[in-house]
Amino acid sequence: MHRLFSLVAFTFLLLAAPSPSAHAQNTPDSSDILAIRHLMDQQAADWNGGDMDRFANGYKNSPDILFVGRNVTRGYAGMLERYRKGYPNPAVMGILTFTHLEPVLLDARFATATGNFHLERSPAAGGDADGIFSLVFEKTMQGWKIIRDHTTSFPPAKP
Amino acid sequence: MHRLFSLVAFTFLLLAAPSPSAHAQNTPDSSDILAIRHLMDQQAADWNGGDMDRFANGYKNSPDILFVGRNVTRGYAGMLERYRKGYPNPAVMGILTFTHLEPVLLDARFATATGNFHLERSPAAGGDADGIFSLVFEKTMQGWKIIRDHTTSFPPAKP
Repeated sequence: MHRLFSLVAFTFLLLAAPSPSAHAQNTPDSSDILAIRHLMDQQAADWNGGDMDRFANGYKNSPDILFVGRNVTRGYAGMLERYRKGYPNPAVMGILTFTHLEPVLLDARFATATGNFHLERSPAAGGDADGIFSLVFEKTMQGWKIIRDHTTSFPPAKP
Repeated sequence: MHRLFSLVAFTFLLLAAPSPSAHAQNTPDSSDILAIRHLMDQQAADWNGGDMDRFANGYKNSPDILFVGRNVTRGYAGMLERYRKGYPNPAVMGILTFTHLEPVLLDARFATATGNFHLERSPAAGGDADGIFSLVFEKTMQGWKIIRDHTTSFPPAKP
């Protein structure tokens, strides 16, 4: 009887105790954060599968989206064209990895994220590349989509 | 009488004609865009006046604001400390100019802007510097403030 009571008490404590992870999973925020993480995972998977059209699907299909690199460029169509020209085949696309991804919700409709990218490629295909990025996301009818992408490529490490 | 009538009719046409510029000035958007442009002008003026505290006032005073350069850093206090260490006197601060500033409203509470900076300095103070930035603004109780700042410094031009 004593052991049964202990078990019941322990179970009650488990259920009643505030669990940070359970709390986080039940807030409306966390499903959005997970959706944004999933979008980025999917982008990397699509890139690594050589599928540029699917990769581009992480961006909002709008002429108003902005890309900041050396210059500012605008719009989904131009972005897809630049990517297709710059990365014409799977060897040049290489293997893309996102790390240090930190999405933060601004409100129910907008979010930002920072992170790093690493591109692994043979020297013949352009060699490895690294950089840091910051993104703005909008929750559209098609789910969270990137609407601003500022990517800074680091200078290649000296051999 | 005929001339007076013409004048009245002309005045009426002037008042009744849809004027694109007057319309733009009366939309709620445009005052926000002007406020963001004013914030950036004020930041440059404060920087060029050697007043780092006033310059920093363009950012939201929050531990959650993010800065992206070579790394991601966080918070108003750390930003101010880094700026004070990196730019300890007016000679090192130099003369800051923002160009190609393009603010875009996302909604009533958030906006983004892209632009370029140019820093003019004597070689002894570090020399000129150039780069591109993207910002996210929030309309706070204290007005529009920067909450995300991703700045890419261009490599110095080779002599």
